[in-house]
Amino acid sequence: MKKIDSTHIDDLALGSVFLATGGGGDPYLPQQIAKKVLETYGPVQTIQPKDLDDNAYVVPIGGVGAPTVGLELLPSLDEAAMTLEAFEEHVGKRIDAVASFEIGGGNSLVPLVAAAMRGIPVVDGDGMGRAFPEAQMMTYAIGGVSPTPAVARDYAGNTAIFNTTSTEVYEYHIRSFASAAGGMVTVAEHPMSGAELKRAVIPGTLSFTVKLGATLREHRGPAADILEPLKAVFDGSIYGECRCLFTGKVTDKSTRIIGGYDIGVATIEDFDDPARSLQLDIKNEYLLARIGERVVASVPDLIVTVDFETSAPINCERLRFGQRVAVFAVGCPAFYRTPAALAVTSPRNFGFDIDYVPLERLPG
Amino acid sequence: MKKIDSTHIDDLALGSVFLATGGGGDPYLPQQIAKKVLETYGPVQTIQPKDLDDNAYVVPIGGVGAPTVGLELLPSLDEAAMTLEAFEEHVGKRIDAVASFEIGGGNSLVPLVAAAMRGIPVVDGDGMGRAFPEAQMMTYAIGGVSPTPAVARDYAGNTAIFNTTSTEVYEYHIRSFASAAGGMVTVAEHPMSGAELKRAVIPGTLSFTVKLGATLREHRGPAADILEPLKAVFDGSIYGECRCLFTGKVTDKSTRIIGGYDIGVATIEDFDDPARSLQLDIKNEYLLARIGERVVASVPDLIVTVDFETSAPINCERLRFGQRVAVFAVGCPAFYRTPAALAVTSPRNFGFDIDYVPLERLPG
Repeated sequence: MKKIDSTHIDDLALGSVFLATGGGGDPYLPQQIAKKVLETYGPVQTIQPKDLDDNAYVVPIGGVGAPTVGLELLPSLDEAAMTLEAFEEHVGKRIDAVASFEIGGGNSLVPLVAAAMRGIPVVDGDGMGRAFPEAQMMTYAIGGVSPTPAVARDYAGNTAIFNTTSTEVYEYHIRSFASAAGGMVTVAEHPMSGAELKRAVIPGTLSFTVKLGATLREHRGPAADILEPLKAVFDGSIYGECRCLFTGKVTDKSTRIIGGYDIGVATIEDFDDPARSLQLDIKNEYLLARIGERVVASVPDLIVTVDFETSAPINCERLRFGQRVAVFAVGCPAFYRTPAALAVTSPRNFGFDIDYVPLERLPG
Repeated sequence: MKKIDSTHIDDLALGSVFLATGGGGDPYLPQQIAKKVLETYGPVQTIQPKDLDDNAYVVPIGGVGAPTVGLELLPSLDEAAMTLEAFEEHVGKRIDAVASFEIGGGNSLVPLVAAAMRGIPVVDGDGMGRAFPEAQMMTYAIGGVSPTPAVARDYAGNTAIFNTTSTEVYEYHIRSFASAAGGMVTVAEHPMSGAELKRAVIPGTLSFTVKLGATLREHRGPAADILEPLKAVFDGSIYGECRCLFTGKVTDKSTRIIGGYDIGVATIEDFDDPARSLQLDIKNEYLLARIGERVVASVPDLIVTVDFETSAPINCERLRFGQRVAVFAVGCPAFYRTPAALAVTSPRNFGFDIDYVPLERLPG
């Protein structure tokens, strides 16, 4: 697709919650903001990574913080545009296009809002193909793009500008600022050239997510009926296999905000056999799914929880005791199966003492 | 005095530990650095606040973090100058003179190091007349100077630039960055004009501290013998009364790093009567001295602990079980007895449910 207008936003938001694998921040507020802004400012031009000028100046933008905070700390319409403006003022350079940190969750919409208000295109692609909790897990970082200069802006208009060469150090600094500034900030970071972006992006994910959202909307209904349409969408895409891991009832879920992240565990009990349950480990996103001791899916592959009756994807912060859910798994883009990407996104990077096994090699 | 050279540094450091009221950071490392830098680059010109051009651009510089960290995270010679350079680059403006956050502790020496390397003068005066743990307690902040732009630099050269209009917000942001960046950073902040500085500075404290240090050096020996020489130095100065509160042995001292501060309590037991003890409450500095329930001195007045045998001032982070000490109290400059200053530096601002009573009105 060449343009995104306000009529695409609901599908984009729905698809993005699916790809958010439980994290990425609830898109409800960014969705309302994006619709309003695109109605007011008109459609946003999308640009394929391969069509970008090698010398174009591209800046990813999005929210950084704990998704639970995003439910209550309401963003204003112009936060993204103001953040870009502060960024341009700092670097003394015009931004040619914006891109998304992560297509999963509300961060799929933030760049559109900024692009519409500033009259610049948005890249059809993103830095994760899903959602991950840390900056060094982005394709931009893995592809060697420097994280800074980075400009962060809080709800009150206070800003912080970071400079470092290490994405791990940057992640630590920006996360601490997000915590100190109320829990959620808007950030422009990882500025890069068009040439750099081409080597370090998951391409086409904006268009794909609109299509995925449309499928979810058209087939809204029991989770049992959505698997085939989902398989049809993912098959032949950059993601590949999609399968249903489990269906049951949430019997336990606890997360706490630790160091600016939502961290915890959820347990889903089989409808018929209470002795059989699936456990989901959470750090902003669903990271690991286990039935007993057996790992049935893990990062960087996607683990997605949807409502059992409606198939609406459920973010970690919305998951509640008693909900009836289905848990799906989807393969990750090939970029995340390279050694450089697995070095920062495997289960071990999240503290689990297991190796990553691609979804299609795990027993179904 | 018109110039500070390397031969003044030992006295300045000694006097500054006294005025640091237990905090301010151990001056040992800054002292070695300052001597080396002043030997290499020559003396630093001092300028009286009243002699500053009203349009001069003055930037205070110093360390922010937990003093205990400063004992182990060693600064390099050029950290202060590099921080000023990053500041000038950000604002696109030349700095005419540097000033000190606080004359107490290592932060009395940091501006001298920067001034020597950059060939600019240092203001004879400071923003506290002692040491305080938070930015909003500085005369600059109380006098209405905006805290930002502020540029912070960590030991590895990573930087963060903050922009906000509230010193309380700034304090929260910079403190969180100091914690994230290893516990101690060098910061240039509260940039101001000469006219602003004249309204918001404790004048003459650099010269005074060299004189105080010389007195402490000349009368090194039992604490019982130093009271009279100290009274002679403080009498007629901006501080006024100096008295001995207590002598005894440290029987308990515990501080923890909480939110980037050293926070805790020390107990000093009377040599002869173990039932009689003095308690010191600590937040980087000694804040409150109590004998039983009776307050014998409190912020913003100065509480100072010295070695009983040598009269060497002892910082909180150096205070140890078994040390034999004398505890002195000194009145604070008149600036800190104004309603605006007491609104942010009274015992209540540190969580103690008592009003400030000036030292000379408390029973001796």
